[in-house]
Amino acid sequence: MTRPGFTGSALDRADPIRQDPAALAAARADAGARLLRMDGIDPVVGPDGLLDWGGLDEAPPGAFLALLGLIGGSPRFVALSGIPGGAQRSPLMMELLDAWPPEEAATYAAARSLIDWHARHPFCARCGAETAPIRGGWARSCPRCRTEHFPRVDPVVIMLAEHRGRVLVGRQASWKPGRYSALAGFVEPGESVEEAVARELHEEAGILATDIRYLASQPWPFPSQLMIACVARTANDALTIDRHELDHAMWVDRAGVEAALAKLPGAPFDPPPAYAIAHSLFRMWLDG
Amino acid sequence: MTRPGFTGSALDRADPIRQDPAALAAARADAGARLLRMDGIDPVVGPDGLLDWGGLDEAPPGAFLALLGLIGGSPRFVALSGIPGGAQRSPLMMELLDAWPPEEAATYAAARSLIDWHARHPFCARCGAETAPIRGGWARSCPRCRTEHFPRVDPVVIMLAEHRGRVLVGRQASWKPGRYSALAGFVEPGESVEEAVARELHEEAGILATDIRYLASQPWPFPSQLMIACVARTANDALTIDRHELDHAMWVDRAGVEAALAKLPGAPFDPPPAYAIAHSLFRMWLDG
Repeated sequence: MTRPGFTGSALDRADPIRQDPAALAAARADAGARLLRMDGIDPVVGPDGLLDWGGLDEAPPGAFLALLGLIGGSPRFVALSGIPGGAQRSPLMMELLDAWPPEEAATYAAARSLIDWHARHPFCARCGAETAPIRGGWARSCPRCRTEHFPRVDPVVIMLAEHRGRVLVGRQASWKPGRYSALAGFVEPGESVEEAVARELHEEAGILATDIRYLASQPWPFPSQLMIACVARTANDALTIDRHELDHAMWVDRAGVEAALAKLPGAPFDPPPAYAIAHSLFRMWLDG
Repeated sequence: MTRPGFTGSALDRADPIRQDPAALAAARADAGARLLRMDGIDPVVGPDGLLDWGGLDEAPPGAFLALLGLIGGSPRFVALSGIPGGAQRSPLMMELLDAWPPEEAATYAAARSLIDWHARHPFCARCGAETAPIRGGWARSCPRCRTEHFPRVDPVVIMLAEHRGRVLVGRQASWKPGRYSALAGFVEPGESVEEAVARELHEEAGILATDIRYLASQPWPFPSQLMIACVARTANDALTIDRHELDHAMWVDRAGVEAALAKLPGAPFDPPPAYAIAHSLFRMWLDG
């Protein structure tokens, strides 16, 4: 199987260093330490077309340096500076993701999700006080009530419903014309992956899932989801579309999915980008 | 396979009602509407030994009533009252979980995670203002910066490492004597399920995972995790234990796991409770 998008980063997350102030100080003082060059939340492209790395002295004055981890023994940091959270995906960044191998996009994804989480969570949700980064940037601490807050990862199920050799694809009204993908939704408190898959297929398309199988996963850094990809056989194929969630949905056969992934003229839909696990899902389904 | 703990709730989450103020008002006015009786964050036991349900008029004055969903068409609510968040697991609740079928524990799990999330997140993490519940209790809204906050679910990988017919079990120093379980850890921003499994096994036990396979999942309401259970073959069995995470770890063969699950005298360890997915993991491994 192809590696899902945003996986395979060369980063060793080096958790013991995060937890040890002396080790963190040594990593910051390391002559081989490097800073991820960023333009706001966008990546800066280096001479090789991949991520660019500079010296720690390039960080804005007073910025907290978060330890992304080690690459080849060299400590890698990113500056948590005054970036507004929840930024849109820029055209440049999306072009880079199309071009980069998954492992390069994966390093960017970790940095982007971490920076964005700090930007969107400067205050304590428990007491309202302003918090500050700790543990090398992998948590924030409240000076008033002492609560520690950890970066949020939201699990999302994304599933290919299958009925008699056809799969269900849907589109949201905000997507570009022709773009369809697998259906997806957030896992809620108190449900399993399989229950979330069944609920979403029923809510969004009115179909009953059976035989739900996990296939693969990927992180998704917009802003920080864990995508859990499944395939589900369904008991019926009559669709009842929830118009609040979906603009349209339809069943597509094998030849249609093959034409879509190959971007052939006349294909029944425009597929998600290769770095989205929905693309891997279609590929895995075709490959059996 | 046995149903994992905390799954199979009879609740229909009825998302369209949450999103529609008129439908919510109608649900609250429904003569068949019921309120989950709670003692703080603990369940109240009904005459049948299961969860107990009363009338909505039993709610504390001014309490927000969150819509858990529908059971048999009847709207089911729980009061978000002044319960301190992050409560310990009481002996009574743990006894009930041992006794209840998974589907009854699942309804309690959804309510407990939701109540606890509200209790621990009364302020806006973005701007520090006090927030209020919206959408039938499935979100909070900030009156100052208009950010909407959704209940948090933290994905956790829990994995059975396997090497030549033996599996790895570990214990934390805080657990009761003899208790061992599968290793586990939080999924971080920027990593997949499989990467989190490999990282945790390497960090905590110094072993290299290969052939990671997803097996099952469950919600875990202390306070709100999504447990993602995997099995991983490992390239080696020499352990390097991270003493910050684990008190001890050891390899156990099939006969040992069978003896532990059967609670035989002389078993090599005391297994996790049946409602924990680690228990299902051991059972699934024994069953091949």
